[in-house]
Amino acid sequence: MVYQSEIIIKSNAFDSLYDITEDVNEIINKSKINNGIVNVFHIGSTGSITTIEFEPGLKEDLPEFLNKILPRGQFYKHNATWHDGNGDGHLKASLIGPEITCPVINNKVNLGTWQQIILIDSDNKPRTRKIFITVIGE
Amino acid sequence: MVYQSEIIIKSNAFDSLYDITEDVNEIINKSKINNGIVNVFHIGSTGSITTIEFEPGLKEDLPEFLNKILPRGQFYKHNATWHDGNGDGHLKASLIGPEITCPVINNKVNLGTWQQIILIDSDNKPRTRKIFITVIGE
Amino acid sequence: MVYQSEIIIKSNAFDSLYDITEDVNEIINKSKINNGIVNVFHIGSTGSITTIEFEPGLKEDLPEFLNKILPRGQFYKHNATWHDGNGDGHLKASLIGPEITCPVINNKVNLGTWQQIILIDSDNKPRTRKIFITVIGE
Repeated sequence: MVYQSEIIIKSNAFDSLYDITEDVNEIINKSKINNGIVNVFHIGSTGSITTIEFEPGLKEDLPEFLNKILPRGQFYKHNATWHDGNGDGHLKASLIGPEITCPVINNKVNLGTWQQIILIDSDNKPRTRKIFITVIGE
Repeated sequence: MVYQSEIIIKSNAFDSLYDITEDVNEIINKSKINNGIVNVFHIGSTGSITTIEFEPGLKEDLPEFLNKILPRGQFYKHNATWHDGNGDGHLKASLIGPEITCPVINNKVNLGTWQQIILIDSDNKPRTRKIFITVIGE
Repeated sequence: MVYQSEIIIKSNAFDSLYDITEDVNEIINKSKINNGIVNVFHIGSTGSITTIEFEPGLKEDLPEFLNKILPRGQFYKHNATWHDGNGDGHLKASLIGPEITCPVINNKVNLGTWQQIILIDSDNKPRTRKIFITVIGE
C-alpha cells in the first residue's frame, strides 16, 4: 500500500528549524498504514530534513554550527553568477540532505523520546515550503 | 511484504563506530524478502547511521574529523541549559543523520566490497542503542 | 511492486559532480510504477548521493567546501596504512552519505524545479561507478 500527501510550512529563512513530527503523524494516521516506512522529502534546493532533540538550546546551536562551516557572507560562485545571495543555503541543503526515511509502527512514526523530525530552511528570505510524504507498508 | 525487527548495541560514547552489516543481513535473512530495500534507523538523538570502509585507519579518522568541526569541549547552548555535556553529540547526529536505506538483492543488503553499515555513537557515556530495521519488498 | 536496475557512470575523481536525474527517471519509466519511492544508492565507499541545483557555480562551490573541511593533502590514518591517498574521499562519502530516497509520482521522481539528484565522486582517480536503483510502489 502507498499513501502520498504533502505538508506546507510558511518558513523564515537563515537556518530556522521547524518540528514537523506531528504533521507526519497526521498523514500516517490518514494513510491507515500500520507497519512500514515513511519518506519525508523536502521539495527544493535550499531546505533540508533531519532529526534532532527539538529544544531551545539546539535550535540555536545547529544554525550556529551550519554558519560556522558555511558562512552566509562568504564568497560563493553561485552568488557571483545569480546574485541571489543564498549560495550558503544551497550547500547546507546538499550537506544535510533533502530527506529522511523512518520506520512506521502501530500507525505512528517510530522515533526516540527526544528525537523529532525537522525542516531546516537555509534560504535568505521567507518561503512557502512543501514537504512531500510517502507512506509505504501494510 | 514488510518485516520489522531491531538490533541492540551496547555502545561506548565519543564517536565510537560499530559495524552492524552482519546484524542487518541476519534480519533480512529472517524476513525471507529477496528483493527490495532495508531501512536502518537509529532510535535516539545522539547516534547516527552511515556507511564506511570499516578499517582501523578510518575508525580513527572519522571521529577525529567530527571533533574537529564539532569539538567536544566547546560552548553549546544545549549544555548551558541541560548540563549533560553532549551538545556536540546531538549536532553530529543531526549532521550525519539517523538512517540509511539500502537495496536488498537475493536476500542480502547490496553494498560495495569495502562498504559497511555503521552506527556512530556520539554521546558522552556508554549507552544501550536500539537500531530499528524495516525490510520491504517481495 | 519492486523494480531494480543500475546506472553506470564513468567518473572523474576529486569531488566531481554528475547529474543522474534523467537516468533515474528512465529506470522509473521502465518500472511502470506510478506512485511510490525510488532509492538511489551508490555502491562503494568513496562516492555519495545528494541533491543540488546543478548549475556551474555550485558545481565549483560544493567541491571547494568539501575540500575546506576535509583537505585532500592532509594526514589521514587511512592513507598512512593503505597508501592509496584517498582518505579524504572516504570521509566525504560517509559525511554526505551513499543514498537518497525520493518520492515517485505519475511515473516520475518528484523534485523541485531547481533540484537534481547528483553523484559526488570523491576518489582520487577515474572510476566506473555503479548506482543501484530500487523503485517500490504501485
